[in-house]
Amino acid sequence: MKSVTRTQVGIIGAGPAGLLLSHLLCIAGIDSVVVVESRSRAEMESTIRAGVLEQGTMDLLDSAGVGARMHAEGAVHHGIALAFEGERRRIDLTGLTGRAITVYAQHEVIKDLVAAREAAGVLPVFEVTDTRIEDMDTEKPVVRYVRDGVDGALVCDYVVGCDGFHGPSRQTIPVQAREEFERVYPFGWFGILVEAPPSSEELMYARHDRGFALVSTRSPGIQRMYFQCGPSESVESGRTRKIWEELHTRLDSIDGWKIIKGKIFQKNIVGMRSFVCATMRYGRLLLAGDAAHIVPPTGAKGLNLAVNNLRLLAKAFAELYTTGSQERLLSYSHNALRRVWRPEHFSWWITTMLHNFDNATPFHQRLLVAQLDYLTTSEAGARVLSENYLGPLTH
Amino acid sequence: MKSVTRTQVGIIGAGPAGLLLSHLLCIAGIDSVVVVESRSRAEMESTIRAGVLEQGTMDLLDSAGVGARMHAEGAVHHGIALAFEGERRRIDLTGLTGRAITVYAQHEVIKDLVAAREAAGVLPVFEVTDTRIEDMDTEKPVVRYVRDGVDGALVCDYVVGCDGFHGPSRQTIPVQAREEFERVYPFGWFGILVEAPPSSEELMYARHDRGFALVSTRSPGIQRMYFQCGPSESVESGRTRKIWEELHTRLDSIDGWKIIKGKIFQKNIVGMRSFVCATMRYGRLLLAGDAAHIVPPTGAKGLNLAVNNLRLLAKAFAELYTTGSQERLLSYSHNALRRVWRPEHFSWWITTMLHNFDNATPFHQRLLVAQLDYLTTSEAGARVLSENYLGPLTH
Repeated sequence: MKSVTRTQVGIIGAGPAGLLLSHLLCIAGIDSVVVVESRSRAEMESTIRAGVLEQGTMDLLDSAGVGARMHAEGAVHHGIALAFEGERRRIDLTGLTGRAITVYAQHEVIKDLVAAREAAGVLPVFEVTDTRIEDMDTEKPVVRYVRDGVDGALVCDYVVGCDGFHGPSRQTIPVQAREEFERVYPFGWFGILVEAPPSSEELMYARHDRGFALVSTRSPGIQRMYFQCGPSESVESGRTRKIWEELHTRLDSIDGWKIIKGKIFQKNIVGMRSFVCATMRYGRLLLAGDAAHIVPPTGAKGLNLAVNNLRLLAKAFAELYTTGSQERLLSYSHNALRRVWRPEHFSWWITTMLHNFDNATPFHQRLLVAQLDYLTTSEAGARVLSENYLGPLTH
Repeated sequence: MKSVTRTQVGIIGAGPAGLLLSHLLCIAGIDSVVVVESRSRAEMESTIRAGVLEQGTMDLLDSAGVGARMHAEGAVHHGIALAFEGERRRIDLTGLTGRAITVYAQHEVIKDLVAAREAAGVLPVFEVTDTRIEDMDTEKPVVRYVRDGVDGALVCDYVVGCDGFHGPSRQTIPVQAREEFERVYPFGWFGILVEAPPSSEELMYARHDRGFALVSTRSPGIQRMYFQCGPSESVESGRTRKIWEELHTRLDSIDGWKIIKGKIFQKNIVGMRSFVCATMRYGRLLLAGDAAHIVPPTGAKGLNLAVNNLRLLAKAFAELYTTGSQERLLSYSHNALRRVWRPEHFSWWITTMLHNFDNATPFHQRLLVAQLDYLTTSEAGARVLSENYLGPLTH
């Protein structure tokens, strides 16, 4: 059995990137089909992932008509706290830049986008397997897959890979044609979800000799906390019993601030990687989001970086189907990369500043404390941190 | 034969730090004697060393009455250029901060200070050998030395070590009592003095895949240029024949700017090190300047950092001899260190941003270019660079 579908833009992956792109194209009157490797809708909507949305990301979600719940349920934050050497110091994001961030979990964004696609009557094709892209270098690339034992073929004008770091899209580009940059960090994050009132109204990032810790809030009754762990640690490892000890040691401050404990109802490990595939277009295959670039989560840039890509892609496809010009599509990689290296640098910078490296010399550790001290006392320093954390002003 | 001298403050070393301290004490009516290991006055005054003076340094030299020639002959710079990826971009130091730096060589500062000491009738004791400090932990520490075959003893209330990184003062502190931090960089600077008109009106710092380069000006007819070289390279090494090739490759830019060649009449190698001895006081021995801390020359902080120490020391001795209180002297190390780590961090930061490390990954090199791009396009970024380069506003 075979199923052949024709569409203008084939999209692989239904994370926020794939769903939002499909939605933006739909608004522009462009037909697209999203196929999703392995996962079901229920699975996707329930995989809990943090989300810090920049103003530019919110603006795009708003203009696409999917921002209502985000405004109702997201929490607007006007500052963050940096904790180090037993002190807590606040960075007044809004005071320094006039802008703010909104904490709204990524899987909630996904729910909103799936609902919008459902309302438009075009749900993704979930739970496919064996996804592969063929004929990228022709005018009719094809996405092939298997669903319920049936071979599917999606014949497209263009294919956009939104299938994440491990997805097949990027791998389809011949390795000799791919320019890639990578750094894997020698640590991970041990994350917990806790039933407790908020310990801190704003996100708190801590540097400690034992390693990084982060306190964030999910809702009035549920909190999210992380602490730096070994690169191959598992949630079942011995350390799990010492979670509160680790958090207390790293976070409790001389001014009497203490973390509020509660029942831990979920644990997970987050890997830490920086990655850029500078070949974001190959023939008629385009990469977006995590398929093209990864940042360590410290800077909270991942989703926002993906949205930068989609803004460019939506414009480029609108141009193609309005004027017939492929110019924006051909320069997509170049234009997208201009927006990639700033958050890549920022994410690396804040990660290396706040984490403990086994091979760090005492000299280097003192430098990092001096840097934190500077960022929390110099207005220019605090603005550098703020404007990077908040993302670009205009898009 | 023996010669015994009594003084209030014994100073070891007659670089800018030792001389300026002696001069400041003299103004405050405090007696001091400076002893100088090995070198003669002529040697000291002719050892060519660069000098970038912060406003705070100039203010102190002015208030000490030794700023006249600095104002007449020093060159006030309102900006610097950063060159990378074939472009030159200017940082408008004065536009961003209202302040400027003055380029005035360190050996000229030394000449002015020696002249001032001469006018006061108290020249340093030059060309001594076997300098050592005894009885630091008593109320009468002694500096012993040999001069013209005669054993000299300088009996003091306090001893200040201004004898540089390799001088004996710091080594006198028992190693178990010294808290030290160090980073030696795996490269040096190959420096040349050239007979030529200025290639650039302002200092130009370049990052290139082949390594760092710096163009500075000494006078309308003499230019100072440096380029990154191997850590154990000598001025006689093969590369000396390729000096202009190295400079052209690293500096010539796509906007047509070219370096102006000339006769090279001096070559030298500068080592690169970051170092902090956090034990800046031990009993009645105090350390100042390079004896206590070293920065790589990229940030042009060395002399200014020493001046920060002297300002504190002059105040502390004034307090001692006016009120009898040793309080400021006892807290000297703590107070001086608060001013040390900021320039230490800045010097490390600008050095690692502009130099090429053999083990740098392509990812890291892209990050550094992204950082340079940010610093030259974000007002906050440029202000961070500027305010650090210019030094603290008030002292």
